[in-house]
Amino acid sequence: MKRAVCLLSGGLDSATALAFARRDGYACYALSFDYGQRHRIELEAAARVARSLGAVEHKTVVIDLRLFGGSALTADIAVPKDRLAAAMSQDIPITYVPARNTIFLSFALAWAEVLGCFDIFIGINAVDYSGYPDCRPAYIAAFERMANLATRAGVESGHELTIHTPLIALSKAEIIRAGLALGVDYSLTHSCYDPAADGRACGHCDSCLLRLAGFAAAGAADPAPYRQ
Amino acid sequence: MKRAVCLLSGGLDSATALAFARRDGYACYALSFDYGQRHRIELEAAARVARSLGAVEHKTVVIDLRLFGGSALTADIAVPKDRLAAAMSQDIPITYVPARNTIFLSFALAWAEVLGCFDIFIGINAVDYSGYPDCRPAYIAAFERMANLATRAGVESGHELTIHTPLIALSKAEIIRAGLALGVDYSLTHSCYDPAADGRACGHCDSCLLRLAGFAAAGAADPAPYRQ
Repeated sequence: MKRAVCLLSGGLDSATALAFARRDGYACYALSFDYGQRHRIELEAAARVARSLGAVEHKTVVIDLRLFGGSALTADIAVPKDRLAAAMSQDIPITYVPARNTIFLSFALAWAEVLGCFDIFIGINAVDYSGYPDCRPAYIAAFERMANLATRAGVESGHELTIHTPLIALSKAEIIRAGLALGVDYSLTHSCYDPAADGRACGHCDSCLLRLAGFAAAGAADPAPYRQ
Repeated sequence: MKRAVCLLSGGLDSATALAFARRDGYACYALSFDYGQRHRIELEAAARVARSLGAVEHKTVVIDLRLFGGSALTADIAVPKDRLAAAMSQDIPITYVPARNTIFLSFALAWAEVLGCFDIFIGINAVDYSGYPDCRPAYIAAFERMANLATRAGVESGHELTIHTPLIALSKAEIIRAGLALGVDYSLTHSCYDPAADGRACGHCDSCLLRLAGFAAAGAADPAPYRQ
């Protein structure tokens, strides 16, 4: 059975990307990161999602991105609230974590090389997250090219490593519709940047606003728990 | 003063690359990794070297590459000894750590972005380490291109991020001669894959053999402590 490393944050997008990998017949090795997030709720969601979608294995890499600071998600900066227009804009938001996808894909590459597999899935999309430079197709193509020069597998076997981005061209509503069709249980996922201690989402941060707008546009109810 | 992030392992090559960055007038931010090496002697050497070469700051990122296994440097596989010909060959050695330079450069990129700087120094060379896919000029060029698409700095400012590889075309003897001319104190550096508990080098692993051959070819004595 062909194998793939699947980046899994515990959020809506990466859960859907994992479901695409399963649909395409891959045995999935889910990879999460404990990178000094403000809460561990996201990691618990990742474990639930990996189990529910039948991942063969789920590993969590501990790295401390707080060492460098520079983002509301890892440093002591307030998470912006109630600004859907800004969240959907082309501006790079303060919640951007420097080089995050590059670091995550690098670890995925290391695991793929050890597993001897040539496929990596990542749930980025260029529509809702156009503000993040490392969510763009040109970036992914450049990473793929670099990865094929970086590894023993690429150099020796002539196999081409592929970074799969099944959500890249989808809107949030299209992602949700696809995920529902593939059987993703979105009640297990977590998207909020600023959840309550019991894990309920705030409903006001950029991530909650995009998620709620996506469910509304998809004509579905978000089964995740919210504060109100 | 212009700033640069300098990858620093504590070995001979990265110490020399740092000396090149200082010569070129950069304020240097040295970056090391605690990645489940068999010994912490290398990290102590990195701290000594950073101090002695006047780095502004020295950070160590803790990551666990043992999570994936796959190398004699991070998994429980014996370090090969007394095989200079093999060490100098084009074969990829068992001490190769999957995607290591890609992971290291990704963290350097994150720090560079937070510092707002556009220069990264790495002490790779294509001559002695031609067996490692991620020590080749084509790989570095591909990483640089990817990095310029990955970051806010590259996308917004139009500044070009540069990966400096001052040692890329040098033999080990040439690296040592250049470092001695730049005032590197090689007694502070550590290269051995299999040192004694007190830090003395084994003199027989690939890294020791290449280092000793380099000093011999440079007509200099290696000031590092060896077991015999």
